[in-house]
Amino acid sequence: MNKTNPEIPYKILLSEAELPTQWYNVRADMKNKPAPLLHPETHKPMTFDELRNVFCDELTKQELDDTNPYIDIPDEIRSFYRMYRPAPLVRAYFLEKALGTPARIYYKFEGNNTSGSHKLNSAIAQAYYAKKQGLKGVATETGAGQWGTALSMACAYFDLICQVFMVKVSYEQKPFRREVMRTFGASVTPSPSDKTAVGRRILADHPGTGGSLGCAISEAVEAAMGQEGFRYVLGSVLNQVLLHQSIIGLETKIGLEKYGEKADVVIGCAGGGSNLGGLISPFMGEKLRGEADYRFIAVEPASCPSLTRGVYAYDYCDTGMVCPLSKMYTLGSSFMPSANHSGGLRYHGMNSVLSQLYADGLMEATSVEQTKVFEAAQFFARCEGTLPAPESAHAIRAAIDEAVRCRETGKAETIVFGLTGTGYFDMFAYQKFNDNAMTDYIPTDADLAGSLAKLPKIG
Amino acid sequence: MNKTNPEIPYKILLSEAELPTQWYNVRADMKNKPAPLLHPETHKPMTFDELRNVFCDELTKQELDDTNPYIDIPDEIRSFYRMYRPAPLVRAYFLEKALGTPARIYYKFEGNNTSGSHKLNSAIAQAYYAKKQGLKGVATETGAGQWGTALSMACAYFDLICQVFMVKVSYEQKPFRREVMRTFGASVTPSPSDKTAVGRRILADHPGTGGSLGCAISEAVEAAMGQEGFRYVLGSVLNQVLLHQSIIGLETKIGLEKYGEKADVVIGCAGGGSNLGGLISPFMGEKLRGEADYRFIAVEPASCPSLTRGVYAYDYCDTGMVCPLSKMYTLGSSFMPSANHSGGLRYHGMNSVLSQLYADGLMEATSVEQTKVFEAAQFFARCEGTLPAPESAHAIRAAIDEAVRCRETGKAETIVFGLTGTGYFDMFAYQKFNDNAMTDYIPTDADLAGSLAKLPKIG
Repeated sequence: MNKTNPEIPYKILLSEAELPTQWYNVRADMKNKPAPLLHPETHKPMTFDELRNVFCDELTKQELDDTNPYIDIPDEIRSFYRMYRPAPLVRAYFLEKALGTPARIYYKFEGNNTSGSHKLNSAIAQAYYAKKQGLKGVATETGAGQWGTALSMACAYFDLICQVFMVKVSYEQKPFRREVMRTFGASVTPSPSDKTAVGRRILADHPGTGGSLGCAISEAVEAAMGQEGFRYVLGSVLNQVLLHQSIIGLETKIGLEKYGEKADVVIGCAGGGSNLGGLISPFMGEKLRGEADYRFIAVEPASCPSLTRGVYAYDYCDTGMVCPLSKMYTLGSSFMPSANHSGGLRYHGMNSVLSQLYADGLMEATSVEQTKVFEAAQFFARCEGTLPAPESAHAIRAAIDEAVRCRETGKAETIVFGLTGTGYFDMFAYQKFNDNAMTDYIPTDADLAGSLAKLPKIG
Repeated sequence: MNKTNPEIPYKILLSEAELPTQWYNVRADMKNKPAPLLHPETHKPMTFDELRNVFCDELTKQELDDTNPYIDIPDEIRSFYRMYRPAPLVRAYFLEKALGTPARIYYKFEGNNTSGSHKLNSAIAQAYYAKKQGLKGVATETGAGQWGTALSMACAYFDLICQVFMVKVSYEQKPFRREVMRTFGASVTPSPSDKTAVGRRILADHPGTGGSLGCAISEAVEAAMGQEGFRYVLGSVLNQVLLHQSIIGLETKIGLEKYGEKADVVIGCAGGGSNLGGLISPFMGEKLRGEADYRFIAVEPASCPSLTRGVYAYDYCDTGMVCPLSKMYTLGSSFMPSANHSGGLRYHGMNSVLSQLYADGLMEATSVEQTKVFEAAQFFARCEGTLPAPESAHAIRAAIDEAVRCRETGKAETIVFGLTGTGYFDMFAYQKFNDNAMTDYIPTDADLAGSLAKLPKIG
């Protein structure tokens, strides 16, 4: 029967006193900086004054800062972090045993809070700065719902109005996430909606559409900019988000060091890049500074493969083409993932820092089909006792594949992956898998050519 | 803005090395022992040989043991516990602040595992002893689904067959819990079903019934006893369950002592008694031995008020009247809570240890209406960032009421309550509350008289 060595702790828990006091900004150590955001009409780099109409001032500053490596985490945010952080770094003993691998597998678990994911790390920061600036509220979009839930929790904490545009297909398939947001006092609108001009236009052009993240972003931006004392906030893609999420990687690094471990490979699922970027940032910093070497693997869905099959070009961050342009790996802002795609990781592009790192060959990327992802999710749940979010299971899939490679080559490598969240609100998808009714979909080159043809012409 | 003193930790976390090595059996310290289980036909005390047909041998021994105060936790169970234990003991700073109370409020949080509740503490023990005895599988019932989920996780871990009879109304209202169980490999049957004789009888007598826990118990017992190599397992009510759940109270006590705190009042929600009994056991032991004094408060739903409105008498543990008789506070085994009652805590009786302690005046009990419970749940979620299970919110309600009393009297008491789990699978109920569509129901004396009239005549 299963039995572990009680001398080796299963969970590496840091004390609250070990909670990092600063975020790490990987841009500071990059030789090739990520390309700047461009104005959607003039195609010139967005200035502080232009961006501050969209984001609150301090976040605008963070968005543009590519020189300061460390930024203090305000006490108020650290107080909130202490509710659920430091997050556990778990040794996956039972998974290792089931795989018969000599690899040591660790996962950083970000699901032990009510938002169910790492999104809370940035939500509380964004809410704090909005409150500090004296704003009334914020508007945002959410896909699978983790970000919206996280933001509603953060806004409840700081007593801010929270308006969420939720991708319609998720709004309908995940009514329970909506209710969590409402419990925390947020208003939730299915997107596209008739509340905004861009929503009405998209509804007219695509009647009956289930929506997309890019489209919900357009609506949230319009809503935020049309209300006095409101700003727009976003849970991924932005550099400020990567900055806040660096708390994941910083804690992971402290935890590993405390136990004398050094990662060989660091793996994260990749949608807009918030978790992956946060997890790998401090390790990437060491690599950029020549202090250590690591392999990094971004894992994306085969049905929405921006890094592995997109192009590296300037593109709109949103479907409505009202947001700034970002240089990134993209499938085109009009790309919509197939309806059979479950869970998040459905954004058409990738954060510009990660895009630059990938273009520079500092990071690998792979894509996996969802039936393989859910097989890994089920296997992991039965071994490790935690039901993963479908998003997180992309990283599990790759970690298992790496551990199997270690078994075949006899290498005792240290594999670290991000378990971004729990799957409690994804049971429709699990049910499909349990009923053997889940299918895969990989877009054809012709599918992608359609949305890629609409990329803006820059310069 | 909210800010806490970083010198005082928010979460009292024990190291894995501090995980208790023994469970505590409060029966050993009781002068008035709980009354023995009686055979449903002969009305004589159940012997070891009779009970071992229902439960596996080691659990039968634990069920009957009212003399040994400490029982070793096997290494295999401790290995599993280390996946999610020690569980956090959290100082509810933000709740205290929001209430303006001088009281110090702590909660022991048992929701940080995929089963979403404390039930896993006993599930893994029961699965272990079944496996050790060489059994093939176990059958059980589940109401809200926490116990079934916990058992399916435990059975997946030890590779045992897991058959769950799920109260039909929960099966339909909580399809997602069912899918979690299936993901862990369990088979789930809505109860009453036509798979058992007792199920068919109940279906014939009550066509269209949504089922009850007592009725699902009857079916699970019949299913277990009719299959070679199977035993029945139960997630609450039994003394063996209280024993395993004592891990909650033991950790709580170590955590408080580590920070120089002494509880004045310990509060738990009460359905069958598993969490309440586990939480208070070690504290009650001190009180029984005259070493310390505490107030204990059992909080039950006004719609299913066994302690506060039931009678202390021998009754069947199940609706089908095939199980042994237990002397307990009961509403009668045919009692069914109103259909508008949300969440668990819908059992007609109360564990016999807790019943005896209550009869002896060693514990208080109160009942609360569900709209007040959900008000407390929402308030707590917004303050403390954790969405509680409706069951747990009964304890929150009472803790808030006690904290308000402290505010009014100026007493800086230490209030400890059990936060048994999370509400992620209870969003139908939260939605009702969010929509202002939740109602209360308190059974009339005449309602109760009906089921109480059917109590068996003993002696």
